[in-house]
Formats: sequence, C-alpha cells, structure tokens
Amino acid sequence: KELQYEVKQGRKGFGIPGLDEMLSDGLLEGTITLISGGTGAGKTILALKFLLEGAEKGEKGIFLSFEEPAAQLLNTARHLGWEMDRHLAEGRLDIKFISPVELDVDKHAFEILDMIREKKVERFVIDSISSFENSVSDLQKYNDYLWALGQQLRRRQINTIFTAVNDDPFSPLIVSKTQISLTIDNIIILRYVEENSHIKKVLGILKTRGSDHDKALREFEITPNGISILGKLDRADMLK
Amino acid sequence: KELQYEVKQGRKGFGIPGLDEMLSDGLLEGTITLISGGTGAGKTILALKFLLEGAEKGEKGIFLSFEEPAAQLLNTARHLGWEMDRHLAEGRLDIKFISPVELDVDKHAFEILDMIREKKVERFVIDSISSFENSVSDLQKYNDYLWALGQQLRRRQINTIFTAVNDDPFSPLIVSKTQISLTIDNIIILRYVEENSHIKKVLGILKTRGSDHDKALREFEITPNGISILGKLDRADMLK
Amino acid sequence: KELQYEVKQGRKGFGIPGLDEMLSDGLLEGTITLISGGTGAGKTILALKFLLEGAEKGEKGIFLSFEEPAAQLLNTARHLGWEMDRHLAEGRLDIKFISPVELDVDKHAFEILDMIREKKVERFVIDSISSFENSVSDLQKYNDYLWALGQQLRRRQINTIFTAVNDDPFSPLIVSKTQISLTIDNIIILRYVEENSHIKKVLGILKTRGSDHDKALREFEITPNGISILGKLDRADMLK
Amino acid sequence: KELQYEVKQGRKGFGIPGLDEMLSDGLLEGTITLISGGTGAGKTILALKFLLEGAEKGEKGIFLSFEEPAAQLLNTARHLGWEMDRHLAEGRLDIKFISPVELDVDKHAFEILDMIREKKVERFVIDSISSFENSVSDLQKYNDYLWALGQQLRRRQINTIFTAVNDDPFSPLIVSKTQISLTIDNIIILRYVEENSHIKKVLGILKTRGSDHDKALREFEITPNGISILGKLDRADMLK
Amino acid sequence: KELQYEVKQGRKGFGIPGLDEMLSDGLLEGTITLISGGTGAGKTILALKFLLEGAEKGEKGIFLSFEEPAAQLLNTARHLGWEMDRHLAEGRLDIKFISPVELDVDKHAFEILDMIREKKVERFVIDSISSFENSVSDLQKYNDYLWALGQQLRRRQINTIFTAVNDDPFSPLIVSKTQISLTIDNIIILRYVEENSHIKKVLGILKTRGSDHDKALREFEITPNGISILGKLDRADMLK
Amino acid sequence: KELQYEVKQGRKGFGIPGLDEMLSDGLLEGTITLISGGTGAGKTILALKFLLEGAEKGEKGIFLSFEEPAAQLLNTARHLGWEMDRHLAEGRLDIKFISPVELDVDKHAFEILDMIREKKVERFVIDSISSFENSVSDLQKYNDYLWALGQQLRRRQINTIFTAVNDDPFSPLIVSKTQISLTIDNIIILRYVEENSHIKKVLGILKTRGSDHDKALREFEITPNGISILGKLDRADMLK
Ligand SMILES: Nc1ncnc2c1ncn2[C@@H]1O[C@H](COP(=O)(O)OP(=O)(O)O)[C@@H](O)[C@H]1O
Ligand SMILES: Nc1ncnc2c1ncn2[C@@H]1O[C@H](COP(=O)(O)OP(=O)(O)O)[C@@H](O)[C@H]1O
Ligand SMILES: Nc1ncnc2c1ncn2[C@@H]1O[C@H](COP(=O)(O)OP(=O)(O)O)[C@@H](O)[C@H]1O
Ligand SMILES: Nc1ncnc2c1ncn2[C@@H]1O[C@H](COP(=O)(O)OP(=O)(O)O)[C@@H](O)[C@H]1O
Ligand SMILES: Nc1ncnc2c1ncn2[C@@H]1O[C@H](COP(=O)(O)OP(=O)(O)O)[C@@H](O)[C@H]1O
Ligand SMILES: Nc1ncnc2c1ncn2[C@@H]1O[C@H](COP(=O)(O)OP(=O)(O)O)[C@@H](O)[C@H]1O
Ligand SMILES: [Mg+2]
Ligand SMILES: [Mg+2]
Ligand SMILES: [Mg+2]
Ligand SMILES: [Mg+2]
Ligand SMILES: [Mg+2]
Ligand SMILES: [Mg+2]
Repeated sequence: KELQYEVKQGRKGFGIPGLDEMLSDGLLEGTITLISGGTGAGKTILALKFLLEGAEKGEKGIFLSFEEPAAQLLNTARHLGWEMDRHLAEGRLDIKFISPVELDVDKHAFEILDMIREKKVERFVIDSISSFENSVSDLQKYNDYLWALGQQLRRRQINTIFTAVNDDPFSPLIVSKTQISLTIDNIIILRYVEENSHIKKVLGILKTRGSDHDKALREFEITPNGISILGKLDRADMLK
Repeated sequence: KELQYEVKQGRKGFGIPGLDEMLSDGLLEGTITLISGGTGAGKTILALKFLLEGAEKGEKGIFLSFEEPAAQLLNTARHLGWEMDRHLAEGRLDIKFISPVELDVDKHAFEILDMIREKKVERFVIDSISSFENSVSDLQKYNDYLWALGQQLRRRQINTIFTAVNDDPFSPLIVSKTQISLTIDNIIILRYVEENSHIKKVLGILKTRGSDHDKALREFEITPNGISILGKLDRADMLK
Repeated sequence: KELQYEVKQGRKGFGIPGLDEMLSDGLLEGTITLISGGTGAGKTILALKFLLEGAEKGEKGIFLSFEEPAAQLLNTARHLGWEMDRHLAEGRLDIKFISPVELDVDKHAFEILDMIREKKVERFVIDSISSFENSVSDLQKYNDYLWALGQQLRRRQINTIFTAVNDDPFSPLIVSKTQISLTIDNIIILRYVEENSHIKKVLGILKTRGSDHDKALREFEITPNGISILGKLDRADMLK
Repeated sequence: KELQYEVKQGRKGFGIPGLDEMLSDGLLEGTITLISGGTGAGKTILALKFLLEGAEKGEKGIFLSFEEPAAQLLNTARHLGWEMDRHLAEGRLDIKFISPVELDVDKHAFEILDMIREKKVERFVIDSISSFENSVSDLQKYNDYLWALGQQLRRRQINTIFTAVNDDPFSPLIVSKTQISLTIDNIIILRYVEENSHIKKVLGILKTRGSDHDKALREFEITPNGISILGKLDRADMLK
Repeated sequence: KELQYEVKQGRKGFGIPGLDEMLSDGLLEGTITLISGGTGAGKTILALKFLLEGAEKGEKGIFLSFEEPAAQLLNTARHLGWEMDRHLAEGRLDIKFISPVELDVDKHAFEILDMIREKKVERFVIDSISSFENSVSDLQKYNDYLWALGQQLRRRQINTIFTAVNDDPFSPLIVSKTQISLTIDNIIILRYVEENSHIKKVLGILKTRGSDHDKALREFEITPNGISILGKLDRADMLK
Repeated sequence: KELQYEVKQGRKGFGIPGLDEMLSDGLLEGTITLISGGTGAGKTILALKFLLEGAEKGEKGIFLSFEEPAAQLLNTARHLGWEMDRHLAEGRLDIKFISPVELDVDKHAFEILDMIREKKVERFVIDSISSFENSVSDLQKYNDYLWALGQQLRRRQINTIFTAVNDDPFSPLIVSKTQISLTIDNIIILRYVEENSHIKKVLGILKTRGSDHDKALREFEITPNGISILGKLDRADMLK
C-alpha cells in the first residue's frame, strides 16, 4: 500500500541538443519539473518546446496557460520555426488558456484532471504556478492543492512541467514560503546575468530526484531558430 | 473561441535611431510594453516620443497622465525640439491629465476605453501605472483591473506603453507583488549608473514576447536635441 | 481647461557658483525642487541660500521651518557671513517656525497659502517635509495634501524647495512609499561619502523636469565663507 | 533525578569514507543530528545512507518521510547501487510515508514513538522537519513538540537524523526563529557553491555536542556509485 | 516672539586634546549633542568626561543615568584617574540614577527640569535616550516629550549630551524612525572597526548646527589614562 | 542611597591561559558577562569552564541550563578532561536543568535567587538567556525580569555569565530589540569564520565596563584537552 506507484525508468527529452545531455538523456519519466526564472527568461518557450518534442514523438500534450492566450503562443512558436499549428490541428497538442481573473481553482482542478485522463495526455505544462498561487487566497490551500495535483500527476505518470516566476530576474532565489519543493522532482533554473554590457541568459540544473545530472551553468540563447545551449560564461559567481 | 484575436506582425517604432534597431525595428504591433525606471530616468519622455513618432505617421495617440499636466508635457516637448503643439492642434495627439487625487478608477476606466474606441487611437500611454496603483486601495482589484484593461487594449490591437516608477532609482528591481508581468509583453528597463563621478543613464530590453531583441545595455542621453542612444559603458555589473 | 497654467522659462539660481551652472543657470522658474540628504548634509543651509539669493534680487521669500527656530537660522547665516538680518528687517525674507508638536496641518495649510498670496512671495522653502510627514497620521492624507499644496504653488508659479531627511545618511535612497515624485520637478541629492578617513559631502542633480542639467557628482563644502562646489572625488561608486 | 539518562560513548557512522573520519568515527551514540541544506543538496540521500549503514550492521532503522513515498526512495537507492530492497524485505529497514496533507501531529506523534519502541529501532530519520513545521499552525506548539520528541529519542538513545530545508540553497543560514538548536546535538551543513561555472556541493560539520570534529569544508558528489567526499575547493568564502 | 532665545557663541569642551580641536574648540554653547554608538563604544565615558571638564571649570553638571548606578560610574572614573569623587562631594557634579523599570516619564520629566533649574546646572547628560525610548510605550509621545525637553534645555542654554545605543555596533546607522534629528544640534558618531585582527574604535563628527567641524574619522582609545584621540586608520570605508 | 552597592575590584578568571590575560586578569568581580555566539560556537563550554575554575578555587557555582541536561554537560566535561564530577560530588558545583517546556519564569525566578542566596554561590551561569527569552511571551516583561535579576545578582556581587544564541552563526550581530545591554557589564563574542576551506572559531572582547581589555580577535580551539586561545587569523574583516 505504501509503494503506491511504480517509478518508470524512461527519459523524456526537450529535443534541445545540449539540454537533454545535461539531463542524462532527458527528464526521468513520470516526474514533475520546475522551471524557475524571471520574466522573459524563457520559461514559456522552454515548456512549449517540451510539449512539441513530445508531439513529434506522438505523445499527447496539454499546455495550461494562465499567462498567454493560445494565439500568442502560436505566434511565438511560428517565429521560432516550430510546427505547433500542425500538432494542434492533428490533436497531439492542446492549449487551454484560463485568465487569472476567471480562474476558479476548485472548479478547474477537476476539469484539468478529467482532461488529462480523457485525452491520455503524456506531457503536461502549467505556465505558471505563480499566477495560480496569486489566485488562491490561502497559502495553505494552495500548498494542499498543489500537493494533491502533484500526486495525481505522479500516479498517472504524466511528464509535467511547472513554471514559476522569480520576482527579481537577476537573483537565483527560487521557491520560498510554499511547500512546492515537496511536489517537485527536478529543478531547472534560468537566470539573467550581465556580462560585457549585455544581458545574457544562463541555465542550470539544480536537482533531479533519483538521477544524475550535469552540474554546469551554461549560457543559452533564444533566436529565430529556437533554443540553443551555448558554452560557459567568463563571469564568475553567476548564482550570487 | 480560444484563439480570440489575431497577432499582428507589424512593428511600431520610437523613431529613435538605435532603440528601434534594438527592438528589431520597433515594438511588435498590438503589444503592451512596460518602461520601468527611477524618477527622472526618462520614462515620460520616452513614452511621449513613442506617441509623437506615431503622430508623424498619422497614427492617433492618447497620453494618459497621472503625473504631469499637459502644459508641463508641452513645455518638455518644446525644449526637446518636438512638434507636439502641431500634433495636438491637428488632433493626432491628445493628452488626458487626471490628478492622482481625483482619479476614480471605476469611473475613469470606462471613459478611457470609450475614448480609445471613439478616437480610433493606435498608440496609447499610461504615465504611470504606479500612480494608478497607489490610488487603488486593494491590490487584487488593481491586478484584476490591469488585466482587464490589458485584455481590452490587446483585443483592439492598441500599441500601448505603461510606465512604472522604481522606488530606488539605482536598483534594477522592476515589478513585484503585482501580477503586471501577466499583462505585459515587452519590458524596457531604464537605470541610473554611476561612472567616473557622473550619473549616467542606461537602457536595456529585458523581454519582448514572441520576438527577438538586442541584449545590449546601452547608455542613453536626453539632450536639447532629444534622446540619443550611445555606446556601451566601461562599468561592469550595471544591473547588480 | 487642461492647459491650466503657463510654464515660465526663466531661471532661479542659488547664487552658488558651480551649482547654478550645474542647473543650466538655476532652477526652471515656477518649479518645485526636492533637496534630499541625511542629517547635517546641508539641506537647511542650501535652502536658506536659495531664499537669500532671491532677497538679493528683490524677490520675497518665506522659510517655513519645522526644525529650527529663527534664532538658530539667523545664527547659522551670520556664521556663514550672510546678511540675513538685513533682509529680514527690510521685509524681503520671513521665517515662519512651527514646532512639530504644534503643527496642525488642516489649520496651517490655509495660513501658509494665505501668507504666500498676501506677501507676493516668489521663493518658498519647507524645511523639512519629513517633519511634516511625521505629523500627519495618515499617509494617504499626507500624499493628497502634498499634491494639493504642490498644485497651488505651481499655479502661483512659486519657486519652491522642499527638503527631505534620509534616515541613513550614507545611502542614496531618496523617496519611497510616498507619492512625492508626483509633486516634485527637480531633485538634488546630498550625500556623505567617506574618502581617505574623512567624511565628505557630495552633491548630484538627479532630475530636472523639462530641462537639461549636469550629470556630475561633485564634492561640496560648507565653510565659514559659505557653500563651495568643489571637483570630483576619486572614490568610485558613491551612489552604491 | 536530574541525571535522567546515561550518555553512551559509541559511534554511529554513515559508512561514507571521509565523512565518518570528519566525525571522529561517526556520530556519538544516542545523539540527534541536523542535516541542513537547500533543495537537492543531498539531505535525503545522506539520511538514507545513515539507515542503510545501520542495516548492514544489523541495526533496525525507520525512515519517516514527509516528502517522498517509499517507491521514490527505493528507486533512488537502486540507482545509487544500494541494497535497500533486501533490508526492507528482511525487516531491518522500514519506510513510513505521511503526506504533508494527511499529517496530524497529535495523532502521529504517538504512533511514531510506539513504532520506535516496538520495533527496537536504533536509527531514525525524519525527512524533513521543515515539512513537519509547515503542518503545525502554531510555532510554540511546534517547538514544544520537537523538544518533547527529542527528549523521548534521547532517553531511548535512538540515533536520530532530522533534515531541514534551507529556503535559499546558496546561503548558509540554518535554523532561525525555532528553538531547534535546543534539541539538536550535531549539525551538518550542505551547501551549493558555484565554481568555474559549475554548481558544486560542499559539506561541513558545524557542531558536535560533546565531541571533536573536523572543521574542514569539503566538496562532495552524488554519483551513480553513491556519495563521495572530495577535497577542498579553491573558492574562498563559501559560507558567506 | 519667533526669536524666542539668543544663541550664545561660547564653546564648551571635553578637555580631550584632539576632540576639542575637531569641534573648533568645543561644542557651541547651549546646544544639544548626540553621541551615538554600539554598546561599549565609549558613550558613557565620553559623556562623563564632558561633565568632569565642566566641573573643573566650576560649571555644575548632572548625569542622568538610565543604565549604570552611581557606584559603577564612580568606579569607572576612578580607574581612568578622574577626580569624580571630589566634584561629587563638593557639589559640582550630581548623578541621578533611575532604573529603566522605575522610570515614569510623566513624573520624572518635571523633576529633571526642576533639578536643572534649582541647581543652576550648566552641563547635562542623559545616558541613554535609547533606554528612555524603550520605556515610553508610544513613539509619538516619546518624540513629543523629547522635543519639549530639548526646547526647555535650549531655552535655558544648558549644554546637553544625549547618548544613543546602536543595536549593531559595527554599523554606522544612527537614528531612525524617531524625530530625534529635530532636537539635536550636533552629532558625534562612535564606531567599532576591525583592522588587523583588532577591534578598534573610531570617532567622527557628522554634524554641528551653525558651526564648522573637522571631517576626519579618527581612531580613539580608552586606556587607564583616559581617552586619547589617535590618528587615521589605514582601513578604508569605515562607514560602510 | 544612590550608591547602593560597592564595586569590588578583584578579578574572576576562566583559568584559560590567553583569555584571562585578554581580560586583564579575569572578569571584574561582581559583574555580569554576556557570551554571545552561534550554535556550537563554544558558549556552553566556556561558561562551564568559568564555574570549574571557580570550583578549583573553592568558589561555589551554579549552572542553570535551559538547553542541556546535567548528564550531557558531565559527559562534555569528561571528554575535555575536566573534573566536574568531583566538584559536583563535593558540593562546589550544582547543575540545575529546567527544560524550556517546563520553564515558568514567575515561579523559577524566586527559586533561583533563593538557591543562590542559600548556597552562597559566587559564580553563576544561565545557559542561555535566548531560551529564557523564548519562553516569556511578553518582551517588556522579559526585559523587566532580566533587569531585576541582574540587579539582584549585582547587589549580591555574584560573578555571572549569560549566554545568548546568535541565529546566524556567521554574523557578528549580538543583541537587539531587548534591553540586555543595560544589564550586561562585559561582552565576549564568539564567531565562526571561514579560512582556507575550514570553519574556524574566533573570540573577541567587545566591552568590559569599568576596565581595560585586549582588543584583539583571536582564533580559539576546543580540543580534547580543553580550550586553547590561538593567534591571529590571516583573514581580514572577520566582523563584517
Ligand atoms: N542516481 C543518481 N546519480 C547521481 N546523482 C544522483 C542520483 N540520484 C540523485 N542524485 C543527486 O542527488 C540530488 C538529490 O539529492 P536529495 O538527497 O534528494 O536532495 P534533498 O533531499 O537535499 O533535496 C539530485 O539533485 C542529484 O544531483
Ligand atoms: N522569435 C524570437 N526570436 C528570438 N527571440 C525570441 C523570439 N521570441 C521570443 N524570444 C525571446 O524569448 C523571450 C521570452 O521568452 P518567454 O519564454 O516568453 O519568457 P518567460 O516565459 O520566462 O517570461 C523574449 O524576451 C525574447 O528574448
Ligand atoms: N530640455 C531638456 N534638455 C535636456 N535634458 C532634459 C530636457 N528635459 C528633460 N531632460 C532630462 O530628462 C529627465 C526627465 O525625464 P522624464 O522622462 O521626465 O523622467 P521620468 O518620467 O522617468 O521621471 C530630466 O531629469 C533631464 O535629465
Ligand atoms: N559656520 C559654519 N562654518 C562651517 N560649516 C558650517 C557652519 N555652519 C554649519 N556648517 C556645516 O553645515 C552642517 C549643517 O548643515 P545643515 O544645512 O543644517 O544640515 P541639514 O539641514 O541637512 O541637517 C554642519 O554639520 C556643518 O558641517
Ligand atoms: N571533547 C571535545 N573535543 C573537542 N571538541 C569538542 C569536544 N566537545 C565539544 N567540542 C566542540 O565544542 C563545540 C560545542 O560547544 P558548545 O559550548 O556546546 O557550543 P554552544 O553552547 O555555543 O552551542 C562542538 O561543536 C565541538 O566543536
Ligand atoms: N579603566 C579602563 N581602562 C581602559 N579602558 C576602559 C576602562 N574603563 C572602561 N574602558 C573601556 O571603555 C569601554 C566602555 O565604555 P562605555 O563608555 O561604558 O561604553 P558605552 O557607554 O558606549 O557602552 C570598555 O569596553 C573598555 O573598553
Ligand atoms: Mg512566460
Ligand atoms: Mg515621468
Ligand atoms: Mg536641516
Ligand atoms: Mg529531500
Ligand atoms: Mg554606556
Ligand atoms: Mg550551548
């Protein structure tokens, strides 16, 4: 009874050369990953790419957005040369947009789980749990709900990404006051750093529960060709 | 139904050489931009220039000011050699000043939207949403209102600029505790830095949703000839 | 109706060589200036000099003091070799001292405005608005009152200086939590810096609404001969 | 009556070469140890290894988890090449998982103590007391409960490890606002440090009540072969 | 009526070579001075010396202590080779000790002023106003009382020293949240600095209302021979 | 009446070569000393040694512990080669342990003072007043009680040590928000510093009321042979 569920051993990648290697071939199957970073750091795009990579392999995905409507996401994808339209049309991808003003956790919680079950979803994104947190008045309730949701997702072995917004985009602080670390298996941190009068983006993997990972901090770029992982930066103390 | 509105692909510039290039030819059409900076950093002047550039191209603009009355803005424009008077006279520009003491959000919200609709406004500025925030007692209400306003502006494809005041003019902290990042597509940060016993101004683009942008931090100057984007500063760690 | 008042183009100086040059010949006529600094930084003396310079030119001035009684100010002026006594005697200068304990904003507000109107005052100082703030229980009321006062002063084109006390004399933080930046056109910051085991004073102009200004940070001295603007300091990062 | 219990003199090791040496052959028998660190620092794995080392020597252990279910822990152990399955099967190890949502301190407190007594447990882990703290509404009650639990464990001479989560994984701050230092005999701190664009892990022993310990800060690694203590890092000021 | 009191021009020294020079021959007559510093910085000893110097010149002094009883102060003076006993015996000096527990501001306020008037006191010390602040429940009341007391002392031209305790002895922060800067004419700051593995003491004059002063930061020592002002320290940034 | 008690001139040492010298032959008789430091810094051991040194000289001592039961302290002493058992047996030393959960200040306050009086105690330790503070709900009450206790101890000329826990073991912050500095005559600070990838301990004397002391910061070690004062550390800015 204690051993409620199996832990799968497969890997679910982003299809981003460099990043999948850093994760020892992708995220461990059935785990929940937090992508944390300031506004504009690339959380939405990284999470979107995770679903698109799944869709390429025939895995169904749902992108639950509390921030940008589908049109916006579609547009972003087009600019990056990603075939999101096709996957949407052919049913491998679904975007569910709930504005923060409309969000009613008690009501939507069931819908989300139903949707995941019905559609046999394999990859799932919530962008962002910060919006979600803001719309729940009571922190305890938020923690409980997140935990329960996490349990359901884990039991169903859904490969999940939560994004979280750092209020200060230049600080590495991740999660505080909430019990989110209980729900999360893996943590990817995105940060702005300044080097040479340029704002650059850096990515690091802080934790992968039950698995090894690369400990390097790498610069990455979002360009019209998508996301590229670059080398190390000269700057020291990026995480201070 | 989810894909409520089209995302336009045109660009709306500031008419400031250097800045428009940094934005890949201007701001993406129909998006909402935040200009954040300390007092005196140049937020008002930058936002004004955005409207004037539109007026030059025949696009109608409204400048909603909670800080300076029209006479003040006119005077500033004259000193910078900008033909604001003509655009005002010929109806391409309108300045609406509401003192923070008089501001009644519930009443003015409708008026603003009506005004935008009637006048077929294409460029719109609120200077500043910080004043606006201060006059709403309830943060949740402020967030909801901003979101709703943002939705209306986006649906009508209005090219919008919000300015926001940083309490500490020498820190890069931008937006916190409010859900403004949900409403905002692009972020331009203005900062004071000290170099060589001089107070200098620096501009950087932190985020442009769905579009590439220059990652450089550039010095800029406000002189009697207007705004000029200069080169890089020697000082490192401007954003720390 | 929106263009409620004219913006004058004249300049009002301090009569301090170096400082007036930094301000492009003085403060723009009819504007409100904030002098911010720690205790002992020189706020009172700078504000006093502004009135004395006006008196020399025949412009009437009122110094509204919440900190030091007239005798104290007179004494300071005498030590600095300033002819305040004569200007007081000949009616070009008036000192109104209200102790913070006695201050009753609702009552004094009208008196102040009456006094300014009756005496055809051209230069006006409040030393300090921090004392003033402390005696108003409600921050919102303080903001509203300051705004209203600012509007009256601006409409009457009074050249006004407000001083404000920084709690930490070695930090550049200026104004926070209050909406004072709405009321203020120009900001002069005074700071202590330590160089070579000496406490030195530094002056910088952060903002002049609608006008250019020097961006340098200069050391200044208060000596028995008055205020002198000196050169640059070797120390870097004075504003950090 | 004051001298309520004997203090044993034996040692209980982790079976990790390097770490046991740092502790002068292991933790003093019958003491309570805090392992403190950010998320992903290795607290769970270190605590698990402590129990497995005991199991190898025939000492019964209980792992009370408020964070990860047994399956997750089993999986982690397998990946690290540890024979946790065998010890579980043969009754030398027990994992008790209570989800933070279900945790009812008043009820579970007795159960835990009963379990420890019945099963003649010699090594005991609570992972983590931070989760535990979050589920008790009243800080005073939490402190009292922790103290009482600590007393019981000490009286029964149980070799105990508590883990605690640092909210900021890059800061050395350990315990605050709670009276946990009263209950704790030994403190091991785990920290992330950044060196050379890599996130590294560092371990130090801050305190061992009544015993000497190594004062070095050592890098350590979690690899598919388990935990290895490495040498010193070049980086200075790791604890700042 | 405004010019309620004369400002005297004489000087009142400490009798400490070096310090009196820094103050241009002593504190301006009839002013109120704040000595601020961490615990053990030397506030009590400096204030005591001020009274003893007066006593040597035949000026009556009262030391109002909320911290140390007379015996303690006497003992300290003896160790420093100061003839406090004689001055006490001959009535030139009086020590009034009120324990913080007994202090009743409303009652003692009158007593203090009566005492000062009756005894024709010329020098007066309150050690410390921090104790005093702690025993007044209401900050506003404390501010009002301090202001009123200051006014009385100034009107009677009493040469007054207030000491204030910095909570963090290694920070230069002086006075905050209270309106004490209104009451104070001069500020002397005492600080600990660390140089060369030694804790040293540094003294600086931050402000003297209406008078010039030395801007140097000097090391000082308390030895069995009393207080000596030493030279400059090599350490830079003592005030950061 | 003011001179309520004599100030003795003898010295009470720790019996630790180096430390007694730093204190000019020990603590001044009849004074109250604060030992402040993070957890594990050595407060308990230092305070214990103070009592043992007294016992060696035939002076009775009481160790009032809110943190560790007698057995624990005995064990620690044994490991350090100290003959605490003998002193306990022969009545020169007494350990009174009150668990923080049981502590009832109103009740225990009398008991403590009775005990001190009856047993003609000459040295007294409270380990720690932080635990004590935590168990008093009202800060004002805590301050009053501490003051009253301090007065009693001083009147009886008891050589007293209070220990206090710093929440952040790597910061030099000592005492804040409480009026403890009123009660304390001497302050010894213990700190962790990091040098060369090692956690080292440093000791400094911040204040000795009425007496000279060494201003050096010295490394110290707790080894199986007891406490040794070592030399200076290379690291600068240990107190920052
Ligand atoms: N099989 C493995 N191989 C290598 N490293 C692993 C393995 N399993 C876990 N890790 C490492 O251990 C970390 C998690 O350790 P854990 O004890 O769960 O941290 P904490 O309890 O402090 O949050 C992961 O981030 C990863 O770096
Ligand atoms: N078409 C594009 N070409 C280049 N860069 C782009 C493009 N679209 C978006 N970006 C980059 O991605 C950033 C936004 O990423 P996003 O994932 O929305 O951030 P977040 O979700 O963390 O706020 C933009 O600031 C921009 O730098
Ligand atoms: N005519 C001018 N010539 C040069 N600089 C000017 C002129 N007018 C304004 N400025 C500069 O612009 C600054 C004010 O910019 P503004 O946009 O009002 O700042 P903000 O809105 O961020 O408070 C002034 O501090 C000054 O440095
Ligand atoms: N006669 C004088 N000669 C030289 N310096 C003086 C004289 N009078 C005042 N000062 C200087 O001016 C400072 C006080 O300036 P003030 O304007 O009162 O400061 P603030 O109002 O910012 O507290 C004093 O600390 C001193 O350094
Ligand atoms: N027998 C011993 N040998 C060496 N060091 C010891 C011994 N006993 C204790 N220590 C050291 O003393 C420290 C604990 O000191 P303690 O006085 O209990 O600290 P505190 O009361 O400040 O928390 C331990 O962390 C250890 O470093
Ligand atoms: N007889 C003495 N010889 C040398 N130094 C002394 C003597 N008496 C006191 N001191 C020094 O003075 C310090 C206390 O000064 P004090 O004025 O009481 O500080 P404060 O009032 O700021 O807390 C002591 O810490 C010690 O360094
Ligand atoms: Mg996003
Ligand atoms: Mg503006
Ligand atoms: Mg002043
Ligand atoms: Mg864990
Ligand atoms: Mg004192
Ligand atoms: Mg202890």
